[in-house]
Amino acid sequence: MTTQQLINQIQKKKSFLCIGLDVDLNKIPQHLLTEEDPIFSFNKAIIDATHHLCVAYKPNTAFYEAYGLKGWKALEKTINYLNQNHPEIFTIADAKRGDIGNTSSMYAKAFFEDLAFDSITVAPYMGKDSVEPFLAFKNKHTILLALTSNAGAFDFQTKTLGSQELYKEVIKVSKTYKNSENLMYVVGATKAEYLADIRQLIPNQFLLVPGVGAQGGSLQEVCKYGMNSNVGLLINSSRGVIYASDKKDFAIAAAAKARELQQEMEIQLKLIV
Amino acid sequence: MTTQQLINQIQKKKSFLCIGLDVDLNKIPQHLLTEEDPIFSFNKAIIDATHHLCVAYKPNTAFYEAYGLKGWKALEKTINYLNQNHPEIFTIADAKRGDIGNTSSMYAKAFFEDLAFDSITVAPYMGKDSVEPFLAFKNKHTILLALTSNAGAFDFQTKTLGSQELYKEVIKVSKTYKNSENLMYVVGATKAEYLADIRQLIPNQFLLVPGVGAQGGSLQEVCKYGMNSNVGLLINSSRGVIYASDKKDFAIAAAAKARELQQEMEIQLKLIV
Repeated sequence: MTTQQLINQIQKKKSFLCIGLDVDLNKIPQHLLTEEDPIFSFNKAIIDATHHLCVAYKPNTAFYEAYGLKGWKALEKTINYLNQNHPEIFTIADAKRGDIGNTSSMYAKAFFEDLAFDSITVAPYMGKDSVEPFLAFKNKHTILLALTSNAGAFDFQTKTLGSQELYKEVIKVSKTYKNSENLMYVVGATKAEYLADIRQLIPNQFLLVPGVGAQGGSLQEVCKYGMNSNVGLLINSSRGVIYASDKKDFAIAAAAKARELQQEMEIQLKLIV
Repeated sequence: MTTQQLINQIQKKKSFLCIGLDVDLNKIPQHLLTEEDPIFSFNKAIIDATHHLCVAYKPNTAFYEAYGLKGWKALEKTINYLNQNHPEIFTIADAKRGDIGNTSSMYAKAFFEDLAFDSITVAPYMGKDSVEPFLAFKNKHTILLALTSNAGAFDFQTKTLGSQELYKEVIKVSKTYKNSENLMYVVGATKAEYLADIRQLIPNQFLLVPGVGAQGGSLQEVCKYGMNSNVGLLINSSRGVIYASDKKDFAIAAAAKARELQQEMEIQLKLIV
């Protein structure tokens, strides 16, 4: 998917919501556990109920790997269902991969070719040759961790490396990578006040912003500091949407929560000059 | 597995060799491709031929994920085969995972419980709460990326963060994490000269050292600067061992190459005072 197609979709749906499909069998409605594939059944119901309110889905691979073969199969079925039924929706493999060159190429093949995701999250610690194999794919997007939403972000990311904080150095250096136009960045909503600085470095790139909702980030703050003329934001909510109810009405409850976020986003979109 | 059990095994086998099971269907002997599960058949033959010469096996998950469900199944079969037939061998999931706390817990469950690996490699960028969920498992080991073997290591890892290089800061800060006694570290053989400094910071921890062989690192240099009185090293070779031949004699050729490395290691072990 091209970035322009993503922007078009945002304008059409008046939403820049990404829904995180982090399926935990201990949290989904118990009546689904008797289904053949409870994880996929849950995802399908959530997607059917919310696809008109969001522009992206983001399964975090940890939640699938935790269930072994069954989990990986559910991930395959979920991405196939999205690509077949909602090809306009941007898909993100939240995998946080990154390894030496020939190994990163295998990950890129796994997520961009076999599973056919539009994008993947990548960890920057191993540098250039760990990121560039992902960037080599045309119309695929590599979402680099810059400033994450968790407390541990203060361990290294916000410490000064040379003349500036590590997360800024990551952004600066990554802009020199080959095909860097395929980069997006993860910036946590819990650190919205950093977004103004980040926009100085990357005014145009899309940012994937987790941490609104369960983690305490504010949608308004993120938009205030992070939005650009093409919106430039994908704001993720996982637990807040998909676990809005653990009863039989879970999909309706998820849609209601997604609608709420979409309406807040519609207001923010009107503020773009 | 306890660290002492690993040390005992090293002393018994006179080897601190780790064999990387990075299976690429384009590189394995072509006659295996007609087998039902070529990846597992390859691994089983390599394990059967080399298990007396090495103390650890390290499948890199990228090479399994690249083949989707079939790949994940082959990974499961490989770790089960190892745990059933060679429970004394240390197993490493080279997965380079790391995410916010509740998500890292899912990865820890996937690799320590379901797949029952003894250890996993973890990326440090997201800090404390991304690493501690792995450390919480008793007699399991978390191998943190410190200084990797690839060129991209110079992008961030060797740059100065505060008063010292990022990789040193990672080591220093990680020592304050809860259950940090379960930490080991990745240090690339291509950067052997850094090992003396690293041993100042962590004299006792085990280091997993990739990059000997195909990537150009030297076994002698690594031992010179990195070995401690308990050996403290696991030196990995992947391509150099498993692809020693692409003919029907591949397992014999892999054993010959592993034997060569084991004999070099035996000489180094005699140098420990």
